[in-house]
Amino acid sequence: MVESWQAIAARKQQERAARIPREWLLKEPAFSYSTNAIDIPRQCGLLTEHEIAITENYDATSLVNELSKGALGSEQVVTAFSKRAAIAQQVCNCLTEIFFDDAIARAKELDAYFKKNGRPIGPLHGLPISLKDGFKVRGYDASVGVAGLCFKPATTNSALVDLLLSLGAVLYCKTNIPLTMMALDSHNNVFGRTLNPAHHALTAGGSSGGEGALVAMRGSILGVGTDVGGSIRIPAACNKLYGVKPSHGRVPYAGQEGGQKPGSSKLGIEATAGPIATTARDCAMFMRVVANGGPETFDPEVVAQGWDQLALFNTKLKPLRVGIVRGDGHVKPLPPIARLMEDVAQTLRAAPGQAIEVVELDLSPILSRCLKSFNGIMSIDGANAWFDHMDATGEPLSPWLQGRLTRRPQKPLDEVRKLQAERTELQTTFLKVWHENGGYWLTDASEAHIGDRTLDALICPVAPHPIPPIDRWNTANYTSAFNLLDLSTGVVPVRSFRTDDLEGDVPSDKPLNGWDKINRELWTKVDKKVYLDSPLSVQIVTPRLTERRLVEAMGAIDAALQPLRTSGRRGSRL
Amino acid sequence: MVESWQAIAARKQQERAARIPREWLLKEPAFSYSTNAIDIPRQCGLLTEHEIAITENYDATSLVNELSKGALGSEQVVTAFSKRAAIAQQVCNCLTEIFFDDAIARAKELDAYFKKNGRPIGPLHGLPISLKDGFKVRGYDASVGVAGLCFKPATTNSALVDLLLSLGAVLYCKTNIPLTMMALDSHNNVFGRTLNPAHHALTAGGSSGGEGALVAMRGSILGVGTDVGGSIRIPAACNKLYGVKPSHGRVPYAGQEGGQKPGSSKLGIEATAGPIATTARDCAMFMRVVANGGPETFDPEVVAQGWDQLALFNTKLKPLRVGIVRGDGHVKPLPPIARLMEDVAQTLRAAPGQAIEVVELDLSPILSRCLKSFNGIMSIDGANAWFDHMDATGEPLSPWLQGRLTRRPQKPLDEVRKLQAERTELQTTFLKVWHENGGYWLTDASEAHIGDRTLDALICPVAPHPIPPIDRWNTANYTSAFNLLDLSTGVVPVRSFRTDDLEGDVPSDKPLNGWDKINRELWTKVDKKVYLDSPLSVQIVTPRLTERRLVEAMGAIDAALQPLRTSGRRGSRL
Repeated sequence: MVESWQAIAARKQQERAARIPREWLLKEPAFSYSTNAIDIPRQCGLLTEHEIAITENYDATSLVNELSKGALGSEQVVTAFSKRAAIAQQVCNCLTEIFFDDAIARAKELDAYFKKNGRPIGPLHGLPISLKDGFKVRGYDASVGVAGLCFKPATTNSALVDLLLSLGAVLYCKTNIPLTMMALDSHNNVFGRTLNPAHHALTAGGSSGGEGALVAMRGSILGVGTDVGGSIRIPAACNKLYGVKPSHGRVPYAGQEGGQKPGSSKLGIEATAGPIATTARDCAMFMRVVANGGPETFDPEVVAQGWDQLALFNTKLKPLRVGIVRGDGHVKPLPPIARLMEDVAQTLRAAPGQAIEVVELDLSPILSRCLKSFNGIMSIDGANAWFDHMDATGEPLSPWLQGRLTRRPQKPLDEVRKLQAERTELQTTFLKVWHENGGYWLTDASEAHIGDRTLDALICPVAPHPIPPIDRWNTANYTSAFNLLDLSTGVVPVRSFRTDDLEGDVPSDKPLNGWDKINRELWTKVDKKVYLDSPLSVQIVTPRLTERRLVEAMGAIDAALQPLRTSGRRGSRL
Repeated sequence: MVESWQAIAARKQQERAARIPREWLLKEPAFSYSTNAIDIPRQCGLLTEHEIAITENYDATSLVNELSKGALGSEQVVTAFSKRAAIAQQVCNCLTEIFFDDAIARAKELDAYFKKNGRPIGPLHGLPISLKDGFKVRGYDASVGVAGLCFKPATTNSALVDLLLSLGAVLYCKTNIPLTMMALDSHNNVFGRTLNPAHHALTAGGSSGGEGALVAMRGSILGVGTDVGGSIRIPAACNKLYGVKPSHGRVPYAGQEGGQKPGSSKLGIEATAGPIATTARDCAMFMRVVANGGPETFDPEVVAQGWDQLALFNTKLKPLRVGIVRGDGHVKPLPPIARLMEDVAQTLRAAPGQAIEVVELDLSPILSRCLKSFNGIMSIDGANAWFDHMDATGEPLSPWLQGRLTRRPQKPLDEVRKLQAERTELQTTFLKVWHENGGYWLTDASEAHIGDRTLDALICPVAPHPIPPIDRWNTANYTSAFNLLDLSTGVVPVRSFRTDDLEGDVPSDKPLNGWDKINRELWTKVDKKVYLDSPLSVQIVTPRLTERRLVEAMGAIDAALQPLRTSGRRGSRL
């Protein structure tokens, strides 16, 4: 008889619980926090002062620097993060596979290597890195939260796992995701739901939601997620973190468990892997060491292009020129998002030394067309692979997916072609956006056609709404459009939701469409105070496969937006 | 009533003939040469001494150098090549669309620009470039030799056309291809058959066969072909020319007429565009100026990576290390091809200063699996698009395609996925080939596992047979494998077929398969003397998207093989 999904899930949860050492268990019951659990690791008494220092006083860049000069040993760093990850798991249910023992054993080997050779083994020497569950690590499941895929340990490593290990990283745990990874709130029937550690009532995001929550808890200093429609950027935004969704072909993605039939990604949209981190420079560091680690020898779809071979901004010769995109023309941003974008535009315009030039854009004609294309391509399979997995053990859909996902016939080949042609047409049209004469710049008549100006980057909202309550994320078009277009995209937290952000109303006229209607309800049918202090972030977008320009733009824009964070006037903090 | 294909073809040929000025017509009847027509342009009396000098004394690199310093004017250069192309057309039927008038008008403008500004307009200032028929040039057909697509002038330029124009090139004609572009001999019902100008009985190759013949006649100094299974490399080899098939994403390909339903290429194998030229350095020049011309702003699928951002060989620090691949394990090379590879290996090993290290490889386990995968992917559509085009006017298949191409049902989506997964698996496996411990190097036990050596390039045959008689090209696996694998690949002519190449027999045992059997018949059922003096070439292969390394390797290997050409001992010439 086939084991039921409930039995499998229970066994899997027992296995996970058993991998947390007894002495790392919280004395207070887990999930007991009311709104903000960020301070629990520091206050629970399980971490030593040194462990608190290791996990709180560094970003990945400074931590690997300490490790690389031998000022910190990998064993102590990995132990500290393992312990803090165990605490995070008990607080917000963010982990799936736990391999602290293997990690600490490897850390000891790396310490011995350092002692013997007097130098680090690679640019990530001894640094603990957490991974989204879809990555395969030999000997552990990559069940992606589906009962039918549990207790089938991977026999190979994903390409990026091998690459990170070759650079000296220590892998110690994997993190939770939503069933099918097509939801934006990380719940599945095997591991349950990941909670937002800083805002109990709000979503932790998805699909890399476990990663977002774990890094927010500083149970990881550098996590790797994957993104096919917003799955790195949304949890980064939900958890006040930085994240990068590269274009396809930059970071190895081969050898993931995606729940799909082999070869599916070639017909659809390629998911990509990227960092979730606490600083912009950590995203840059991750992208740099991966690009310099010979990624094209691990995954045939990665472009052979070291970091020095990627174009950078020539900021010495000209100001950074960014385009402000205030909406997608499909769902109108709620008042706090409109206010955020106005704050951002004003702050960048006021940047010292006129270092940043701001151009207003209207991309509605393109972006409003993207969602239909994206949804069409994403549903080529009709979700048959997922329903097959679930039917094998009688597993039901997660709450959010119920009514949203149904088994349908696969699309016919002619429709797949048509969708691909549509995508190419949109990508081609989007090339015009970067140029002042392309028709998308909102320049004065007097300004237009004055020359040959191009944009370095775009700035746009992550969503048309603030971080919503659990299971209420609305359209993903603000993020998924850039997967469809395959552009390099990152997320930068800007400021917290302030009291004055409660002001403003949605229009009283007819909504643009069903998505727009639901979006308004996040303002009219929610106690808006739930949003107070939640993070507000923006996306930064650069052309396809220009990740070096992207992370440099993220760094420059992040620095320029500092006044929005430190201003005491409105009492915001971030 | 629908016009018959015969009527359309007749009108189309009249249109083409009318575009050749009366004073450029040969006095002798065309197609009158018996074996070698290469000298006809010089001897026919139509070209002035200066025109002969312009078309014979330069390669594209030195010609554009003269144009760029104003030593030659574009008008005289474009006129000379137009005239010579007109002669080539009359001799070997290599052209499709002719726009000499437009070209000369543009050349005059460029000359005026130079005169006014004292500098060239771009790195291809005034250089005439010919294009395969599939490229769209506004105002002219891109019928690809199908009656149903004639007299439908393009309303847009292909991306590469716009890019080349922005660099200062002058486009003056397009060249012939086979019906469906899936044949390897350039015959179609609209324009007829292109002949090999130097070897009347042998094929001119395909699908960029018109380009090969035109450049061989020096009716063009630089042609652009496209290649999905060998279509640049095969005509280059047939016509003793150099050619480069880049990986997808290096040279703009967008906006081609491929005869397929829009979006098809995304499900199949992406064809790529590249140069056919008379020197290796011209291939390098083309690749360099395209990479530096912002190709990613013309085609969203091109990687943003200027030429300086492409890795080059570090030949100063180490010798070039090349792997010799003597066969594909699917069709055994005929004796002259085996001898050619042995000559190449010996000559490279003897290169001065031990500049080249030669490693023997056995890639049979991979390459022998590629053809089935390739053919599977290429037949996803079941040729329905082509048969629809032909049925519209009642057009029949070309001789070679009869019995080879039939209308079949499209493949089901599950099979398309499976084929894509197979392709990815082969690409992943092939990554091991480059490394000495990957299992493909035929090193002595004592040599093995000694370190961390990797290959810079592979050298392998273009086909398992010499240039065959018309319509006798056998398997394309030697070339198409590298489309399936998406590797950077070029062709370098090595030497001519010598008298002693007539020696040797095929094995008497059972052929490996049907392809192998047909290949043996190119030795046993052909008067072998037909091969005498025909060119023998090799392919150079480097990893995906490493075109700079490729053209540098082509240059180095080309130079190292010089002794094979100048050796008087065996009387070879090339």
